Amino acid sequence: MKVSELGQFGLIDLVAKMVQEARDDQAESWQNLLAGIGDDCAVWRGDAANQLAKVDCQVQGVHFNLDIISWEDLGWKSLAINLSDLAAMGGLPRYAMVSLGLPLDTEVEDVASLYRGMLKLAKLSGTAIIGGNMSGSPVVFIDVSVLGRTADPQGKFLSRSSARPGDRIAVTGWLGTAAAGLAILTQKLDFPAPLGDCLKRAFAQPEPRLVEGKLLVEKGVKTAIDISDGLLADLGHICQASGVGAIVEAERLPIRPEVTAAFGAKSFVMALSGGEDYQLLFTARPAVIERFRQASSCPVSIIGEIVAGNVGQVILMDREGKRSRPEKTGWDHFKRK
Amino acid sequence: MKVSELGQFGLIDLVAKMVQEARDDQAESWQNLLAGIGDDCAVWRGDAANQLAKVDCQVQGVHFNLDIISWEDLGWKSLAINLSDLAAMGGLPRYAMVSLGLPLDTEVEDVASLYRGMLKLAKLSGTAIIGGNMSGSPVVFIDVSVLGRTADPQGKFLSRSSARPGDRIAVTGWLGTAAAGLAILTQKLDFPAPLGDCLKRAFAQPEPRLVEGKLLVEKGVKTAIDISDGLLADLGHICQASGVGAIVEAERLPIRPEVTAAFGAKSFVMALSGGEDYQLLFTARPAVIERFRQASSCPVSIIGEIVAGNVGQVILMDREGKRSRPEKTGWDHFKRK
Repeated sequence: MKVSELGQFGLIDLVAKMVQEARDDQAESWQNLLAGIGDDCAVWRGDAANQLAKVDCQVQGVHFNLDIISWEDLGWKSLAINLSDLAAMGGLPRYAMVSLGLPLDTEVEDVASLYRGMLKLAKLSGTAIIGGNMSGSPVVFIDVSVLGRTADPQGKFLSRSSARPGDRIAVTGWLGTAAAGLAILTQKLDFPAPLGDCLKRAFAQPEPRLVEGKLLVEKGVKTAIDISDGLLADLGHICQASGVGAIVEAERLPIRPEVTAAFGAKSFVMALSGGEDYQLLFTARPAVIERFRQASSCPVSIIGEIVAGNVGQVILMDREGKRSRPEKTGWDHFKRK
Repeated sequence: MKVSELGQFGLIDLVAKMVQEARDDQAESWQNLLAGIGDDCAVWRGDAANQLAKVDCQVQGVHFNLDIISWEDLGWKSLAINLSDLAAMGGLPRYAMVSLGLPLDTEVEDVASLYRGMLKLAKLSGTAIIGGNMSGSPVVFIDVSVLGRTADPQGKFLSRSSARPGDRIAVTGWLGTAAAGLAILTQKLDFPAPLGDCLKRAFAQPEPRLVEGKLLVEKGVKTAIDISDGLLADLGHICQASGVGAIVEAERLPIRPEVTAAFGAKSFVMALSGGEDYQLLFTARPAVIERFRQASSCPVSIIGEIVAGNVGQVILMDREGKRSRPEKTGWDHFKRK
């Protein structure tokens, strides 16, 4: 059945029912909710902690292509990229609102799949979906707003603007895996199953680093960002906001050996500017990073250093110590490709 | 200059600067803000009041047409329709996030106008814009999320689900004025200046009834909705959520005499299902409505009564007492026109 046959209110009822069935009475978010989907606004009991909010949008043909991502993965990912921003501030998610734009001939079952994917991650992360909007549109878009609070009881949070010269630059997990997964999907590459699936999942079902974001604050880290636009672009954002420069040592980039084996020199480009890895990039004194590394179950790599001068610039250094200023620094939605 | 020439980050800088210049240090929202535009999330000091949230989206070609609304009015209206939802719950606005979809050839100056309109209303209402998103898109869309708190210190709020048989149905202001304004604009009707401007403004620059929403709670009203889809549709939502029916007396509908003079019988259709009036529709015992009326500077009309039975149905009664069940009950984004 098409959404034009079911109608706006039928579709809202369907989604509201799915959300209600996924309700988790153990989660603080649900416990504090006084009115969810179905009134003019959602209402919940507030608290005095520092509050966080973020909105991010996925547009068909710009951010995603339904030939290479399923509706269910798209639902997961649309929420995940927002939770990743909360993680990068040291936050815990509480509530989400979902604004959908849908062509009239969208299948109702596809919208249900989208919500299934989103609700899976919502449940895992303690997020209650409390509202949204449905609108006709020539292309699919999914605009998700998330609300949360600082994990730290004193309200401490991570920012982009606190990097200082002498800080080391570190990153969680692997880089370039999402770009490798995307390449496998778009180029229909024949990849051995367990690794190929893992790379495709890195692209289609990224896992927001919420546990690691909380731990960063606990261990005394002050500066972080999540890698959505690509390492170079996101590190550039930290440099710009903090009034510093950065040197990245190319050989220290955590790239899976299998990705290097498969993609050769291109794997560096994937790690530097592929984007969508949704790992946390952070800076701190070496001893602080070491404290975090010891407490974390996730791999941590030191990849460079924050320097004074060259404000906003990221310099790349190869194994011979040769420095270069990489040109491609990520993703601009308004630049013609 | 086109947004494709300025680029995403240039455009974000421009908007961030406009928002910063509109900062209002007298407003509680701004005083509690710890991080606004420019980091992964916005951060503010929370409070224990009951919190409210709402998202609503305007899509080009579905909700608006740039031939008949200016970018500045569109900015105002995109925020106003969300604040109207807060008003309908008895809420006060605090924060807003703005997610924009823009074609690559959008003029930067038009985006600035959009923000000018939005910031005008933000300032008037004490709303701080704390974040957003910019994305390429084949059509313009403006998705605004608003956050607020209950105006009532005890946390009381209005809902759709508390109407009881015997309640009178009342409405603030005039009905059908936005639809009249839209008709003047689309049909390029020649209307005398002060009235014509007033009707066009009702369509293009609706004023959210925040003061009245607060006063409704103070005076003991429990049930309200804002009129966005049209009186019949929105009253139907109250009936559905409350498990009751409603009788509306056609001759009591508050329609401007000039609108009746100009549009004849069509003015009734405008008042019943034109939508976008953004007045508050509420139900309560007659004495409660009278208390509200005496305290309010805004006109209040009693237009009917809540009844038991006919759950979810709105019955229309003409001056001879003849009853009918009106067919057109508003706006469905997914029904083909």
